[in-house]
Parts: sequence; structure tokens; C-alpha cells
Amino acid sequence: MTIPDPSLVPLRHDAFMLLALEEAVKAEALGEVPVGAVLVFEGKVVARAHNTRETQHDPLGHAELTALREGARQLGRWRLAGCTLYVTLEPCPMCAPALVQARVDRIVYGAMDPKLGAAGTVFNLVDRPEFNHRPEVIGGVCERQAQGILKRFFEARRNGIRDGGGK
Amino acid sequence: MTIPDPSLVPLRHDAFMLLALEEAVKAEALGEVPVGAVLVFEGKVVARAHNTRETQHDPLGHAELTALREGARQLGRWRLAGCTLYVTLEPCPMCAPALVQARVDRIVYGAMDPKLGAAGTVFNLVDRPEFNHRPEVIGGVCERQAQGILKRFFEARRNGIRDGGGK
Repeated sequence: MTIPDPSLVPLRHDAFMLLALEEAVKAEALGEVPVGAVLVFEGKVVARAHNTRETQHDPLGHAELTALREGARQLGRWRLAGCTLYVTLEPCPMCAPALVQARVDRIVYGAMDPKLGAAGTVFNLVDRPEFNHRPEVIGGVCERQAQGILKRFFEARRNGIRDGGGK
Repeated sequence: MTIPDPSLVPLRHDAFMLLALEEAVKAEALGEVPVGAVLVFEGKVVARAHNTRETQHDPLGHAELTALREGARQLGRWRLAGCTLYVTLEPCPMCAPALVQARVDRIVYGAMDPKLGAAGTVFNLVDRPEFNHRPEVIGGVCERQAQGILKRFFEARRNGIRDGGGK
């Protein structure tokens, strides 16, 4: 995917976020909290991932962390300068510092997280004087769609619990 | 290892920290920042790990995170209630929230980290009203040894750079 006209950059963000949303839908189908992420380097997707905590029994199974690890494997380096991480939900206090430490250029997220958002909403663990790197942060890309998937998931879970079929 | 007498608990902490220090020495031999960790459940070590960022090109290659992931795999669950994580250096802002989210009972660390320590020294990302879990934190266990390994590593690296042999 190449969109050279700078005025079309917001559309490019949307296009990559749609891929992250596809990942979120995959998580939903597995009963995982529906969050997806893609890592992009020089306009190309180098990793796609979704939440896998429950299915893989992995405490690190957040979409962002899996995308970081897989992207680093693809690029053969752990410092991910030049990369943008797209994620459907604002990163949590574990994932935001992980993205900073991995030196991603930019974090683009969909929905704000009013409970644990660590890109400025509840915590600011991205732009800190103590850190030696400060990624650019862009929030609210495809926000409505990202929120919609999460809302549908949690409503279904609540209804399942009410009906006695919850997990 | 079982030490039933409660007055001997500090010694037990020392014993597990010595295993974490062994892991730190392994990291040092690989040219990694020498930090090691062990995860303990019901008095038994379920995972041992050391830093692997450089050798594995893994942005998540901190000792604590690898111990969490491996321990969860061993126990078949991502919620690590009942576990204590021993680590030679105070957890960073990525690792401290990861330990909270994994629900470990207790974090025991060796040396304080005056630059990025997130268990109270620079950040407090362990005991927060926003989190739904608060692990107990014990610092300063085998502190001198943990500091010593780090000091030796960074001194050697500085000397290597000065001699033109640095990485």
C-alpha cells in the first residue's frame, strides 16, 4: 500500500487501522477481548496480531506486544525505529512503555481506554522526561468502529453471564 | 526447597534470588545487560530467565517478561496468583505493570534502579488505585551482589568502548 500524497495520510492511517480491526474481530471470535494491532515499516505491514491471553495462557498476550515481537523477528532487530504501531484500543500501562522501549516512531490508536489508557487518558507512559524516546501519538483513528467491537463483546459477555452461559 | 520456619523466610528469598543472580551471570556472558529472574509457585521454581533483547532481537526480552511467559506456560494459566517473581533489578515501567496484570502475589527485587525503577523508585506502577491487583513488593534482597554484576558489566562496556572494542 503506497499513498504518496501527504494530504492522504489520514486515509492511510485509516487503511492500516482497518487491518488492526480485522485482527480485533479474530480475537472476538476466539472469546478474547477484541483488540488488534499491526506494525508497519516503510509503508508495509510487518506484523499483525490480536489478543491471545486466554487461548494461549499468555500474560503478555496483548495485541501490541505480539505485534512488537513478531515485527522485531521479521526485521531482525529489537529497536523498531521507523515503525508505526496501529492498535484498536489505547495501550495499557504495560504496552505503552513497551512501545517506547522498542523505539517505535509512532503509536496510532482507535478507541480511548477510560480505565487503563496509558497514552494520556489515565496514565501518561509515552511522553515522559525519564524516557530517552518519545513516540508520536495519534488517537481516535476509526474510533467508532474500534469502540463498537469492544461494546458488542462486553455486552454479549454480560448477557451470557446473565443467561448462565458466561465463562 | 522448603523452609517451613517463618523466621527463615528472608533466607528463602535469598536462596531464590541467588538463582536469579545465576541467570544474570548467564546474560552477562552473552553481552546482555545482566538481569535475571525466577518465578516461584508453592516453593518451587517454575521458570528461570535472563535478558535476551540483543541475542534474540526481542523488544520484550527482559528477564521478568520471559519468566512470566514461561511460568504461565508451565502452569497452563496466564493469571499467576500464588506466584512470587524474583528479579535482580527493580522492574522497569514495562515489566512492573506486566507483573501486576499477571496477578503475581509478590515481587522481590535486588538492586534499585535509579533511572527507570517502576516499583517505587522513579515510577510507582505497582501499587495504584487504578489497578485491580497490588502485589507485595520487597526490595534490596542480595542487593550488593545484584548491583555488583551490573556495575562490572557497565564498567567493562565503557572500557571496551574507550579501547575501541565496544559494541
